[in-house]
Amino acid sequence: MRDKTNPIVGIIMGSASDAPTMRKSSSLLDELAIPWEMKIISAHRTPQRAHDYVTTAADRGLKVIIAAAGMAAHLAGVTAAHTHLPVLGVPMEGKLMGGLDALLATVQMPKGIPVATFTVGSHGAVNAALFAAAILALSDTATRDRLLDYRRKQTESISEEPPGE
Amino acid sequence: MRDKTNPIVGIIMGSASDAPTMRKSSSLLDELAIPWEMKIISAHRTPQRAHDYVTTAADRGLKVIIAAAGMAAHLAGVTAAHTHLPVLGVPMEGKLMGGLDALLATVQMPKGIPVATFTVGSHGAVNAALFAAAILALSDTATRDRLLDYRRKQTESISEEPPGE
Amino acid sequence: MRDKTNPIVGIIMGSASDAPTMRKSSSLLDELAIPWEMKIISAHRTPQRAHDYVTTAADRGLKVIIAAAGMAAHLAGVTAAHTHLPVLGVPMEGKLMGGLDALLATVQMPKGIPVATFTVGSHGAVNAALFAAAILALSDTATRDRLLDYRRKQTESISEEPPGE
Amino acid sequence: MRDKTNPIVGIIMGSASDAPTMRKSSSLLDELAIPWEMKIISAHRTPQRAHDYVTTAADRGLKVIIAAAGMAAHLAGVTAAHTHLPVLGVPMEGKLMGGLDALLATVQMPKGIPVATFTVGSHGAVNAALFAAAILALSDTATRDRLLDYRRKQTESISEEPPGE
Amino acid sequence: MRDKTNPIVGIIMGSASDAPTMRKSSSLLDELAIPWEMKIISAHRTPQRAHDYVTTAADRGLKVIIAAAGMAAHLAGVTAAHTHLPVLGVPMEGKLMGGLDALLATVQMPKGIPVATFTVGSHGAVNAALFAAAILALSDTATRDRLLDYRRKQTESISEEPPGE
Amino acid sequence: MRDKTNPIVGIIMGSASDAPTMRKSSSLLDELAIPWEMKIISAHRTPQRAHDYVTTAADRGLKVIIAAAGMAAHLAGVTAAHTHLPVLGVPMEGKLMGGLDALLATVQMPKGIPVATFTVGSHGAVNAALFAAAILALSDTATRDRLLDYRRKQTESISEEPPGE
Amino acid sequence: MRDKTNPIVGIIMGSASDAPTMRKSSSLLDELAIPWEMKIISAHRTPQRAHDYVTTAADRGLKVIIAAAGMAAHLAGVTAAHTHLPVLGVPMEGKLMGGLDALLATVQMPKGIPVATFTVGSHGAVNAALFAAAILALSDTATRDRLLDYRRKQTESISEEPPGE
Amino acid sequence: MRDKTNPIVGIIMGSASDAPTMRKSSSLLDELAIPWEMKIISAHRTPQRAHDYVTTAADRGLKVIIAAAGMAAHLAGVTAAHTHLPVLGVPMEGKLMGGLDALLATVQMPKGIPVATFTVGSHGAVNAALFAAAILALSDTATRDRLLDYRRKQTESISEEPPGE
Repeated sequence: MRDKTNPIVGIIMGSASDAPTMRKSSSLLDELAIPWEMKIISAHRTPQRAHDYVTTAADRGLKVIIAAAGMAAHLAGVTAAHTHLPVLGVPMEGKLMGGLDALLATVQMPKGIPVATFTVGSHGAVNAALFAAAILALSDTATRDRLLDYRRKQTESISEEPPGE
Repeated sequence: MRDKTNPIVGIIMGSASDAPTMRKSSSLLDELAIPWEMKIISAHRTPQRAHDYVTTAADRGLKVIIAAAGMAAHLAGVTAAHTHLPVLGVPMEGKLMGGLDALLATVQMPKGIPVATFTVGSHGAVNAALFAAAILALSDTATRDRLLDYRRKQTESISEEPPGE
Repeated sequence: MRDKTNPIVGIIMGSASDAPTMRKSSSLLDELAIPWEMKIISAHRTPQRAHDYVTTAADRGLKVIIAAAGMAAHLAGVTAAHTHLPVLGVPMEGKLMGGLDALLATVQMPKGIPVATFTVGSHGAVNAALFAAAILALSDTATRDRLLDYRRKQTESISEEPPGE
Repeated sequence: MRDKTNPIVGIIMGSASDAPTMRKSSSLLDELAIPWEMKIISAHRTPQRAHDYVTTAADRGLKVIIAAAGMAAHLAGVTAAHTHLPVLGVPMEGKLMGGLDALLATVQMPKGIPVATFTVGSHGAVNAALFAAAILALSDTATRDRLLDYRRKQTESISEEPPGE
Repeated sequence: MRDKTNPIVGIIMGSASDAPTMRKSSSLLDELAIPWEMKIISAHRTPQRAHDYVTTAADRGLKVIIAAAGMAAHLAGVTAAHTHLPVLGVPMEGKLMGGLDALLATVQMPKGIPVATFTVGSHGAVNAALFAAAILALSDTATRDRLLDYRRKQTESISEEPPGE
Repeated sequence: MRDKTNPIVGIIMGSASDAPTMRKSSSLLDELAIPWEMKIISAHRTPQRAHDYVTTAADRGLKVIIAAAGMAAHLAGVTAAHTHLPVLGVPMEGKLMGGLDALLATVQMPKGIPVATFTVGSHGAVNAALFAAAILALSDTATRDRLLDYRRKQTESISEEPPGE
Repeated sequence: MRDKTNPIVGIIMGSASDAPTMRKSSSLLDELAIPWEMKIISAHRTPQRAHDYVTTAADRGLKVIIAAAGMAAHLAGVTAAHTHLPVLGVPMEGKLMGGLDALLATVQMPKGIPVATFTVGSHGAVNAALFAAAILALSDTATRDRLLDYRRKQTESISEEPPGE
Repeated sequence: MRDKTNPIVGIIMGSASDAPTMRKSSSLLDELAIPWEMKIISAHRTPQRAHDYVTTAADRGLKVIIAAAGMAAHLAGVTAAHTHLPVLGVPMEGKLMGGLDALLATVQMPKGIPVATFTVGSHGAVNAALFAAAILALSDTATRDRLLDYRRKQTESISEEPPGE
């Protein structure tokens, strides 16, 4: 289902160790038939790569960028500084207060450069992908139908009876 | 410039006291020629109004909803629970740790129901409006051009010389 | 001892994973001969179920509702918005600061819609059940006697001598 | 409307400086025709007074106790230790993290001695009074009708239109 | 060395589960030949025992009381409310922010009723015992000499060379 | 009443700006007829003065040292490192989380070097002085009687009736 | 004393509103006869300016860069990503927990790209300048002598007597 | 490569248990051919050793001191108080909020005595060593070349492709 040649969602992350978490994003995009690509790009250790990736993103057909980083999580902010595309930030977990530092470093952007922030870790990775789908669904009815279907199944899958009853 | 009859961005807030802050959102949308509407809707004190507003939002032509609330800020979450439209959450300032409670209550959504969260207070209000514009720009070149123009002017407006030099 | 046909305490929780913790509530209610029921209801993923459950609660004979949820814990607040019955909130543990986010999202309700909040996790589950009993004891002497008996035994069970002496 | 001779709600607080905040509780009880009394009782500076007040509370006809305190807020906990009546805790604001210390000291009770905790400051004072009314409404239809009426008016009083429109 | 019949330091704790930590206090007192006693006393679950223990402490010959408790740690405060003896508080570790709640509930006493607070957990248990010795050393030269000897050995025991060199 | 020539309590603080707060300590000591001295000593900016003051303290007749400092509050710790006398730490208020940084820097001492910590600001200054009196009262019946008298008056001074009744 | 044509310390900040705080840095550098320059450079709103400034810094003769920013303070990190020069970060105060967010965003850099972080606000601005001097003093004896002189005067300026004695 | 007889970087730490973390600093210095020495020095338990080490550091040829400590981390501050050399502080992890207490105790220095602070734990140990190299590189081209080489290899070592692709 995934179309590597024409991705419309770019998933980038600051470290290879973030990949297992961010596979939650790509799996969900696969489920909704949204083509994506995934790259390791460090705002601090590969700043030129970050610059090149982001400034060419719109022209290469990307419509949404999901950026994941931990600690002083600058990747989403750097991305948002170089593009007008919607940038979704996913803070990674850390030792200092369970990822609160990454959450604050992602969400506390200055006026003028927004980053849409989601919760810390794998829940945030899933929700960022769902949110990307919600954006794309505004101009693509097939995506909207798949998203509505996903939401309906999600609601139905939650049994009212607690386990062990 | 604002077109009250065909708003595409809905701005809702939990209390009338949030209105001065959220006027930052509507002013920016005016600047980018994006029609909006603004309502007071409390997730807790007017839950039926919240339900009715959100479930009819897509059919009424809204494409993005900006929801602002403070403290145990449930409004954005309740909104996201009832629609597939992108929901942008703006936490309001409070006395307990400067709004950190509202920030956490907005961003810490469970897996499956995303809320795109922005920073606390008026900076968040501005950035949520800019992010709404970024979403709309994906399928509307006029909005994209106005957004790019806004970003360019913003960059140019920042003098390199510190004041008083 | 539990009477499934006439529950007077409703225990609801946002996720099946909360059930082991909330069994602490139901076990204590059993010990005090207070009939209860337990349901999985997500404020965000099954909002209609939440609405239906809460708005019919008083008519079905429920007198107290215990609502447990984690992270941006909205379930207790949503419940309190739709009923005049006493709503007791139990925050679930989480990774971000050990459940402090859920505690704040439960307790920081706006003026007008109270949620009585207890401590995070299984201690809170026990205490919410004891508090439900305290409420019911006001108009039921059998419950009051059982509660006083429980409290007396609890006091007596605490040996003054530390273990290993 | 207030009946000093037969109060059924006791409002106690750790310091005279808490009185202006706790008048929000008594005003609301007046509005719902629920008789109350108010006392200054410090868990630390007048421990005997605390003991005497709480241990005689049920026999004097009190049904609910609202206890307010700041900082290392022990008053609600001490109260709950000496009575089986429902104890509602209202943390007072402070300088250290805006009252978070009082909130934690009130809510983090050990297993076996519950304190129903509400939000910090005057919002908590109002909500504790409303919650006391919800408890009393379970066995008093006049109180229930007044509470439902209060809730209905509260919902109606929230204009959908933001100020200044 | 420990003289059970004439303890001068009382070590009390809110739960039997605190005993392993507080054995660090008693071991150190043994090392300094200071007689002690240890009791489980819950401020909330055995309030009468707490009252009786503390109000008779001075007459029974106790000179210092070390009180350990977790969460909404009231034991040290309740103790200080009922005696003029120096009360040393040791917060126990917990899940919510690693014991910060217990630390704040112990240290944030109102003006007029001091509790000398030490760090969370076993380090605090050791330091409270050392501090008790420092108090007793003011009027007992044998204790002072043992304390000075302990401090000197402690300094000497710290090798300047890191392990593995 | 204050006897400058034979102080037994030393009050030291990191900055002249702490003096108004620490006058609360000296005033209380005056009230209890305990002679004191007060000095500005910075652990960081006047380390030699700190060393000289503390290492000569016991020989000069001091029995207790109260040390106040803000931010990375090292003064109490440095003092405790150089003396076996009881050291009482009073954290000063600051901008970062209302003094929580100073509280943690004072209380979180390593195993072996205790600092008895009190609450932030003027309440802590009063309580540290009362605690110094409690220590001195162990071997001085006149001080004990004055302390008991102070405590009794404090209890009596708290009116049961809230203001404005 | 300031030599605008050959600055060796660059002071950059994210917003013109940071200038009054950062004048504390430049004043101190003037006092130590260290030439500096000051620029407004936003990591997010003027990313190209940031890139150009930092990548040319070493060749233009700069030896140390002081970077100040608030909230999701990325400026120091972006600077460190593009140069091998020592980068000193000064977090600016903010509403959310008094600048703790900026402190964490500055100090929590990933392994490999260090930012030397100082305390929040004007104290940090002074200390960053003093630290820059300490670096330069390693290879310039005139600067070292001025720094030692500054430190000596600082120590002497702190009167041992508290004000008002 | 390490030259024990002429170290120019001193690595000190408050406890032998910090050594495994601080070996990350020394390994990196070895990689950059910068000679170092490592000592256990406790600000509180071996204050004389701390004084002697620091006051002789410059004369013994040290140019930079890296100081690591946990909890109420005073070591870096004590070091900075006694020398004009650049002092780099590395907070160690702890139980209370993951090392945030040590971070605040290290970074929150008073005006006039700077400590350059790095992130908590082993990442901070690596970055402090890299920062020491950056300082030394200002006056030693061989070190500068090795540092630039290290940075270049670091950038190249980060594969753009996520693992498992």
